[in-house]
Amino acid sequence: MTKQERATRTRDALIRSAAEEFDRHGYALATLSAISARAGVSPGALHFHFENKAAVAEAVEQEACAALRRTARIVYGRRSNALQNLTDTTHALARLLRDDVVVRAGFRLSCADDSRTELSLRQEWQSCVQQRLAEAADEGLLAVGAGGRQDLARTVVAATIGLETLWRDNGEWLSPRTVTGLWRTLLPMLAAPGALAGLDPAGSPAVADDTRIPVG
Amino acid sequence: MTKQERATRTRDALIRSAAEEFDRHGYALATLSAISARAGVSPGALHFHFENKAAVAEAVEQEACAALRRTARIVYGRRSNALQNLTDTTHALARLLRDDVVVRAGFRLSCADDSRTELSLRQEWQSCVQQRLAEAADEGLLAVGAGGRQDLARTVVAATIGLETLWRDNGEWLSPRTVTGLWRTLLPMLAAPGALAGLDPAGSPAVADDTRIPVG
Repeated sequence: MTKQERATRTRDALIRSAAEEFDRHGYALATLSAISARAGVSPGALHFHFENKAAVAEAVEQEACAALRRTARIVYGRRSNALQNLTDTTHALARLLRDDVVVRAGFRLSCADDSRTELSLRQEWQSCVQQRLAEAADEGLLAVGAGGRQDLARTVVAATIGLETLWRDNGEWLSPRTVTGLWRTLLPMLAAPGALAGLDPAGSPAVADDTRIPVG
Repeated sequence: MTKQERATRTRDALIRSAAEEFDRHGYALATLSAISARAGVSPGALHFHFENKAAVAEAVEQEACAALRRTARIVYGRRSNALQNLTDTTHALARLLRDDVVVRAGFRLSCADDSRTELSLRQEWQSCVQQRLAEAADEGLLAVGAGGRQDLARTVVAATIGLETLWRDNGEWLSPRTVTGLWRTLLPMLAAPGALAGLDPAGSPAVADDTRIPVG
């Protein structure tokens, strides 16, 4: 292992360890000594990589955002049709927030202060929903009587952002069951009758397997 | 005017003035001297009512929560049917958040820290939605094929909480147009075909007028 590889590995270990400390104790109570101890490195090694706690937190946030974007791209690469893809993306992002401590801690850090990261992630999600619905219209998947496109997009954005807000109080809101229930309710409203039968509100199994990748 | 009435009036003026300062500058940058000056009272009078900035903020929060609950009760008193009532309540609460500086500032204060107020308001809203949908089922208003009751309730809760989260970035998310668009999308999903024609996604005009009451 080269010196460069060792440095990258130490930095990754510190980011994961910091995420676990932030996740468990919150930003204010997490300490640099606990972070370095959990990563199995010396305080000096931590300071070589990060100037202070804020710098570690920023690295956790950046890694979380990168992982969310990477997952959305992977799911998009596996798309069958636009409505199924929107469903699959929601499931994949929810799973990432549930299961990956770096994503969870980073996302929560980005929500805790006046950080613009959260705003930017929300705007990206909004664009993603609008784009998928435009594609669904092109693919002839949208129900004819399904109201204005803008109303539909706003309802989907609001409902998914709402799950994420509610999840901060109670983890059940991003469970597979709740996300599936949301799409079981929304898809009949969005999809043309002919398209509905081919859509799985629980997400495509193939996509679910593909996106179970480790972060970082 | 008795001494007691004067004291109440001064306290109300200070709460409104504090809300305006918090709304304009945020909690951290608002100063007690600006709050007392805007209310037209001496710093001594402010300190007679409130020990410090945190105490003023708490009073603004409490007044905001009381106003939201009061409005929900008034709208419930004017109910025609359960689905219209749910629509009307959303419009009335959105209007209060948009138009009343005490409600807006107090609600934002309750979201800014680890306050339990926001959590409790969200839980109350969740109970309100569940109760209205149970009533709608009793009144025979729900569509037969409208999926599981729990899925429906969660979708309505998530979509409305999502509007409120998105509104913190951009006021348009609680505009009458957006709230109406949400219900134009959701009501056909919830309501039995026979009931749908009698429902107004823009809210009942009578209820809208009744809830335009000043706060405090």
